[in-house]
Amino acid sequence: MMDGRFEHLSEELLAAAKRVKLLLMDCDGVLTDGRLYFTRDGEEMKVFHVRDGQGLSTWHVAGFESGIISGRGAAEILGIRAKDLGMKFVVASSRDKSADLDKILDAAGVTADEVAFIGDDIGDLPILERVGFPVAVCDAVEELKPHCLYVTATMGGQGAVRELTDLLLAAKKIESA
Amino acid sequence: MMDGRFEHLSEELLAAAKRVKLLLMDCDGVLTDGRLYFTRDGEEMKVFHVRDGQGLSTWHVAGFESGIISGRGAAEILGIRAKDLGMKFVVASSRDKSADLDKILDAAGVTADEVAFIGDDIGDLPILERVGFPVAVCDAVEELKPHCLYVTATMGGQGAVRELTDLLLAAKKIESA
Amino acid sequence: MMDGRFEHLSEELLAAAKRVKLLLMDCDGVLTDGRLYFTRDGEEMKVFHVRDGQGLSTWHVAGFESGIISGRGAAEILGIRAKDLGMKFVVASSRDKSADLDKILDAAGVTADEVAFIGDDIGDLPILERVGFPVAVCDAVEELKPHCLYVTATMGGQGAVRELTDLLLAAKKIESA
Amino acid sequence: MMDGRFEHLSEELLAAAKRVKLLLMDCDGVLTDGRLYFTRDGEEMKVFHVRDGQGLSTWHVAGFESGIISGRGAAEILGIRAKDLGMKFVVASSRDKSADLDKILDAAGVTADEVAFIGDDIGDLPILERVGFPVAVCDAVEELKPHCLYVTATMGGQGAVRELTDLLLAAKKIESA
Repeated sequence: MMDGRFEHLSEELLAAAKRVKLLLMDCDGVLTDGRLYFTRDGEEMKVFHVRDGQGLSTWHVAGFESGIISGRGAAEILGIRAKDLGMKFVVASSRDKSADLDKILDAAGVTADEVAFIGDDIGDLPILERVGFPVAVCDAVEELKPHCLYVTATMGGQGAVRELTDLLLAAKKIESA
Repeated sequence: MMDGRFEHLSEELLAAAKRVKLLLMDCDGVLTDGRLYFTRDGEEMKVFHVRDGQGLSTWHVAGFESGIISGRGAAEILGIRAKDLGMKFVVASSRDKSADLDKILDAAGVTADEVAFIGDDIGDLPILERVGFPVAVCDAVEELKPHCLYVTATMGGQGAVRELTDLLLAAKKIESA
Repeated sequence: MMDGRFEHLSEELLAAAKRVKLLLMDCDGVLTDGRLYFTRDGEEMKVFHVRDGQGLSTWHVAGFESGIISGRGAAEILGIRAKDLGMKFVVASSRDKSADLDKILDAAGVTADEVAFIGDDIGDLPILERVGFPVAVCDAVEELKPHCLYVTATMGGQGAVRELTDLLLAAKKIESA
Repeated sequence: MMDGRFEHLSEELLAAAKRVKLLLMDCDGVLTDGRLYFTRDGEEMKVFHVRDGQGLSTWHVAGFESGIISGRGAAEILGIRAKDLGMKFVVASSRDKSADLDKILDAAGVTADEVAFIGDDIGDLPILERVGFPVAVCDAVEELKPHCLYVTATMGGQGAVRELTDLLLAAKKIESA
């Protein structure tokens, strides 16, 4: 039975979700709520959400892969959390997000049509315009949303990625467990 | 006189609450709001709520015990806060929550029927399905709630555990003090 | 002209506010939003609000004094912030809040009737029942509010203390500057 | 086409926005949500928002400058974030904000009429009363708002500065990119 949250979605959208093999995402504002924690030593901390982690774990157990493409630095923290989550692809300080997407598509052996990407700001547009399942968090900048197939009900850093893995698995009729 | 928040509860639910001798809980998303604070050194901080602490203190003074069963790590931080709170049982990095529940039941000398457990995600299901008083925080994943007798009005990390100790003590007609 | 927020207050309440010479407060849940930040080294951080600081600064410039009575530890952090704010009285790890109030009354040369206290939980009751102007933050536990003359519209850690200094100064017809 | 958020603004306000060449701001409560993070070593962390950074980046790329005038300390953290953002002017621990404004006007070669300033508290009044485009965050103290031409819909630290850069660029009919 389809999760109540996703019952209203169109067949077309569910078909696009069903094709997804690789879930990519921005970090700040998506896996986090956009807060940047600075000390005298620069950006020293990132704050993730436990229920996003559970969603990504279920996604990986179901046989799919995931990764981060971020335009910002703090690569070490990103790497530690990505490893903790079992993510396969991590790009920090991306200067050309579309080129970095190409590298990941190549490494993962999937096409852009088989990728979901979830973002929050205009820097994510070059990727959102290419992938088969483009998604915006509900607190993304408004100009991003017309380019997306789905806008989450949950805010970035509060479980938006979990909502997306739930949706993708529901479209594939895979039970979370 | 029954606290206004709990006046509407059924006799059956209050009877189940009255039987509780041991209060167990998940950590992330229950004692915290689910945020995970990562630095270059990994998960370095957990954020608890002062009013949960007051509730657990009253619970312990009333002669009852409490503990944590968490599927995640950060055992040192958990241990420090649990000691600060006077909690007796702490399991971090649990790989088999049901087996860990058995160990605690054994050590505490209570039956599963005398346990309340409060959780937020599907990893808590093996425990919630066994205990006498299963509880979900209001921001838990929806699929958890049909398995629970009570859903808090308060979010995890914002005093959900305090609401539960208030309820349990109200069912036992013990005044907080 | 009376600030719009306080126009509806009774003459009796404003008279009690006008008598206040010393503003005392709990820390966690009042000067903070109740979050307790734990690392492997214990409670390592407290999070205050900039606009509370401005209110206390105006209160001090107007010739009045302030202080903290907290039942919790983290005395060093409390001391640093209190000094930063120009607060005169700081008690951490209070085991007998009423006795600690007596000591401060003595040192400040004021009577309990000339004190405002703002709290959030039942541990503050012994003080709230004695002072001339007892106040609860809006997110205090409900059982505290019947004992208070005023409940703030602002949550603890979000400017509740500022709202109170604004009220006290408005009652005294002192302009903030 | 004008961004929907700004369509309702008067021609007069848009004309004032169009004149702005330099965007100055308070830090705490504007670039942050007002939270002050204290450890045993004093104020050790400030928390900014990723989408403010994107807005300031677009503002700089469009050929305009920006800066901070703060009455508080933590100059090192401010300096690091300001550098990260490409801000040109940073004053911490300002004792005379109006005099510090004069110094920045001189260095930047602009008049007060060509400056936007965004603040949250009464300490910002000496600047807000002088600049051509005075702005308050929506959670500013109420007494500030009558002195401002615009009040953001977004809270401080949650993207209020981004809303302002979007408005200024929209008034100048410059597309964000």
